[in-house]
Amino acid sequence: MSKLVVVGTVAFDAIETPFGKTDKILGGAATYIGLSASNFNIDATLVSVIGGDFPKEHLDLLESKNLDLSGIETVKDGKTFFWSGKYHNDMNSRDTLVTELNVLEHFKPVVPEAYKDAEIVMLGNLHPLVQQGVLDQMNKKPKLAILDTMNFWMDIALEDLLSVIKNVDVITINDEEARQLTGEYSLVVAARKIHEMGPQYVVIKKGEHGALLFHKDDVFYAPALPLEAVFDPTGAGDTFAGGFAGYLAKTEDISFENMKNAVIYGSTLASFCVEKFGTERMENLTDKEIHERLLQFKDLTQFEIKLT
Amino acid sequence: MSKLVVVGTVAFDAIETPFGKTDKILGGAATYIGLSASNFNIDATLVSVIGGDFPKEHLDLLESKNLDLSGIETVKDGKTFFWSGKYHNDMNSRDTLVTELNVLEHFKPVVPEAYKDAEIVMLGNLHPLVQQGVLDQMNKKPKLAILDTMNFWMDIALEDLLSVIKNVDVITINDEEARQLTGEYSLVVAARKIHEMGPQYVVIKKGEHGALLFHKDDVFYAPALPLEAVFDPTGAGDTFAGGFAGYLAKTEDISFENMKNAVIYGSTLASFCVEKFGTERMENLTDKEIHERLLQFKDLTQFEIKLT
Repeated sequence: MSKLVVVGTVAFDAIETPFGKTDKILGGAATYIGLSASNFNIDATLVSVIGGDFPKEHLDLLESKNLDLSGIETVKDGKTFFWSGKYHNDMNSRDTLVTELNVLEHFKPVVPEAYKDAEIVMLGNLHPLVQQGVLDQMNKKPKLAILDTMNFWMDIALEDLLSVIKNVDVITINDEEARQLTGEYSLVVAARKIHEMGPQYVVIKKGEHGALLFHKDDVFYAPALPLEAVFDPTGAGDTFAGGFAGYLAKTEDISFENMKNAVIYGSTLASFCVEKFGTERMENLTDKEIHERLLQFKDLTQFEIKLT
Repeated sequence: MSKLVVVGTVAFDAIETPFGKTDKILGGAATYIGLSASNFNIDATLVSVIGGDFPKEHLDLLESKNLDLSGIETVKDGKTFFWSGKYHNDMNSRDTLVTELNVLEHFKPVVPEAYKDAEIVMLGNLHPLVQQGVLDQMNKKPKLAILDTMNFWMDIALEDLLSVIKNVDVITINDEEARQLTGEYSLVVAARKIHEMGPQYVVIKKGEHGALLFHKDDVFYAPALPLEAVFDPTGAGDTFAGGFAGYLAKTEDISFENMKNAVIYGSTLASFCVEKFGTERMENLTDKEIHERLLQFKDLTQFEIKLT
C-alpha cells in the first residue's frame, strides 16, 4: 500500500441545481478527493487550509474516514474558502455566483513530515504554484504525481501551470479544458500535445460521456454509468480523481492496464457522488454498494465479440 | 443468414465541412445502410426511388456490393432527391442548405416479391407513412423491424411517427431526438418512455460519445473510437444502422447479448465512414480492416477489474 498526499481546497459550497439549493455545506477539491480515496483504506493526508469558522463536525467526518488532517492549517481569525454556483438545466454547464478566496489567498501548503516520502501525490485543483510547492517538499520524486486543474488557471497563470504540468506523470482534465490547453478540437490530438508537455498519462473527463485514458499510442474509454437523474455534479471530477489515485495507492501498480481499472473505480465513485447534494452520498458509502456498481460497469461495457 | 429489406433514400448530397466541400455526390440513408450491411455478405434489397438523372455508375457500385436493386424505382422524367448541408467547426451540428424532395415527394415503396418474407426490415429515415407502407407489404411480421428517424418527422408528422414506432422492435435515434421525442433529459428515462411506445430495444446514438443500447432494465454503452480527425459525419448514423442490421441478419441471433455485438459492429463501421467525404471510405473497405478495428474497439473498452 502506497501513501497518498492530497492537496486542494477544504471549503464551503452553496449549490443550486434544478432539483434544489443548499446553504453553505462541506465542499472543496481535497474534501471530495479524500472522501473518495478513503474507500480504499489507504494512508492519506490532506494538505489544505481552513478558517476559524470551519465546523468541527466536518473535520470529525474526514477524520472518521481515517484521513490524516495534520496537513490542514487552521487560520483562526480567517474565513474558509467559499464557492457558490448554479447549474443550468442540462447540468453540464454552471455559473459561478460567488468566489471568496479568504484564507486561500495566502495559503502556503505544508506537507506533514511523515508523508514526505509518499509514493503518490494528488495535486487537486489550486494555483499551480501551490501545486508545485507540494511537489518541492517531497523528499524524493514520488512514484506518481497526478495533477488536476481547470480553465481558470489557463486564463490567469498559464506559464506556472505549464511548469508544474512538466513535472507530473498524470493529468486529469475535462474535454473543454484539454481543447483550451492545446488549441486542438480532436481529443486524440489534444492528448498527444499534452503528452509532449510532460505527462505520460492523460485522463480526459467528459462528464456524462465518460472518461478517456491516453498513454503513448494506447487509449482506453470508460463510459459513465447512465443515470436516471443527476442531482448535483459538484465534486464529481474530484471524486473521480480520488478514486483513481486511491485505487493506484492501494494496488501499487501504475501500469497502463491497472490504470484502466483506476479509471473504472474513479468513474464508479463519481457515479455515486452526483446522486445527492454535496458530499452527502460520499459520506455513507459501503464497500458492498461500490462492488455492486463495479459489476454494473462491467455489464455496461463488456462484450464477447464474434468475428463474422 | 436472414434476408434484409432496407428502405430509405438513394440520393445526391453536396457537403461542406471545415476540411472541404463536394459537388453532388452519392448519398442517402439506404445507400449508407446498404453499403454498410453489405460487409456481412447477406442477401439485402434496397427499396427506394431515383430520378432519370441518377448515374449508372452509382447503381453499378451498389450492385457490385451484391445489393439487390430490384426495389429501386426509377422515375425517368423525375429528379433524384438532393440534400446539401454545411457542418460547423465542431462537426456535431450542421445547417441544411438545400432540400429538394423531387421524386421522393410521391414515393410509394414496393418491396420486391422475393423479399416479402425477409426476417429483418431496416426502416431508414423517411416519412413514417412510407416506413409503415413497407411493413404493411411484408407477408408476415418480420423477426426484427428496426426504425431510424429524425427530429424533422417529430416536428411535422408526430402522429404517424408514433404509429409506426408502435410496430417496430428496435429504434435507433440520436440523443437530442430521444430527448425531443420524450421530453426527458435523462437518456435512461427517455429510453424507458420509448420502450413504452413500443420498441423493446432502444439504441441512442451519441456521435463522438458512442451509442447506448437499452432493453428493459439492461443497458450497454459502446463508446465511439476516438479519432484524429472527422472529415465528414454524413451517413455515420446510417452506416451504424446498416452495420447493426447487417450483423444481426448474418448471425440470426437477436438476443440482447448479440445485439451488443451488433452495436460494436455498427460503431466500427461508422468510424470508417467519417474518415473521408461521402461514401468514399465505405466503397473500399476490406474485412481485414474491419477486423483490425474491432480489435481496437476491444482494447479501447475491455478491462479486467480487480476488486480491492
